[in-house]
Amino acid sequence: MEIIDISVSVYDGMKVFPGDPTVAVLPHSRIARGDAANVSELHMGTHTGTHMDPPLHFFMEGMDVSHISLKRLIGECYVLDLESIEKKITREELYPKRSLFKNKILLLKTGNSRLLEDEKFHTDYVYLTKDGAELLVKQKVKLVGIDYLSIEEYGGSGEVHRTLLGSGTPVIETLNMSGIEEGEYFFTFLPLKIKGGDGGPGRAVLIKKEE
Amino acid sequence: MEIIDISVSVYDGMKVFPGDPTVAVLPHSRIARGDAANVSELHMGTHTGTHMDPPLHFFMEGMDVSHISLKRLIGECYVLDLESIEKKITREELYPKRSLFKNKILLLKTGNSRLLEDEKFHTDYVYLTKDGAELLVKQKVKLVGIDYLSIEEYGGSGEVHRTLLGSGTPVIETLNMSGIEEGEYFFTFLPLKIKGGDGGPGRAVLIKKEE
Repeated sequence: MEIIDISVSVYDGMKVFPGDPTVAVLPHSRIARGDAANVSELHMGTHTGTHMDPPLHFFMEGMDVSHISLKRLIGECYVLDLESIEKKITREELYPKRSLFKNKILLLKTGNSRLLEDEKFHTDYVYLTKDGAELLVKQKVKLVGIDYLSIEEYGGSGEVHRTLLGSGTPVIETLNMSGIEEGEYFFTFLPLKIKGGDGGPGRAVLIKKEE
Repeated sequence: MEIIDISVSVYDGMKVFPGDPTVAVLPHSRIARGDAANVSELHMGTHTGTHMDPPLHFFMEGMDVSHISLKRLIGECYVLDLESIEKKITREELYPKRSLFKNKILLLKTGNSRLLEDEKFHTDYVYLTKDGAELLVKQKVKLVGIDYLSIEEYGGSGEVHRTLLGSGTPVIETLNMSGIEEGEYFFTFLPLKIKGGDGGPGRAVLIKKEE
């Protein structure tokens, strides 16, 4: 069993989506100062690092992160390599591959993974279009993951999020898929179980199938 | 595949270990106020809710949560039902069952699970003793989990933590094992990948083996 971590690290001052809460990791107790143990305090947004967007992120009455079925977050997955795409992932790109990800968890690997190490937020990341999102809903994907801080065009209207989340398809953003080959894997994403959470930071892993 | 969530919820004002940072979930942007999306800010300690103690929690130079091998956190697990124990889990209790959990992830289910729903922190929870911890190290358990906010006696010296963490055995605290039957499961715990983290909140699941 080979386990591959595709999560980004959480740390003080890390890059966040513009306008989101900043991240701080502050010492609370320290052995070096005579305390019994090391404990820290975290300040972060619900959309920090590798995280889930549940319907509540874009719909006032939408399902919160703690109620998303774990069956959508754990299971058969297809990683689609779209590194050759420079701007946007459309229906046209996805349609010929639809049988590969139908009814599965789908991860979109793009050139964005290379931007994740950069401290700077890039606004020209590769994104999914509305007609692409509609195809994924039609193919009943259980979950869509992507390798940047948003799945939608920077400054977009929210229509891509609303298409996916409105159909009950959660989105995982900021996955680091550097070095991951296209193909089938077993995927697990476990977000913090935040009661009423409009987002959920978490950890994502791929388990490689035995050949 | 049956997936059982054994994590507790994270919420504003939830119970924490005495002296630990309090938990706040604060609105950052709200659709109801005219914002594009709902985003919240989290303030919490590194030992909030279901979480891991890595060696760095008790050793200044110990391994931090982001470096703990995922192979210790994902794999074959044995849930030991110790509900009949009223005070402490000693070597004597564990020794006759040692072949059941040798080289595995071990979860200690006690009457503590019933206390988790209570908003009040109980100081008289069931805990593991030092000689019990020593036996687990000798049996090379990959990980030890328990169903209260600490694995060690309230007001203890830290010797139980130091025995486990000093041998590189991470501890998962505040697992909710209500209703879980003794036996073999496949376990996954994924903590936030906090760089230099002395603890890591996360989510824990059991997957029931097919009969």
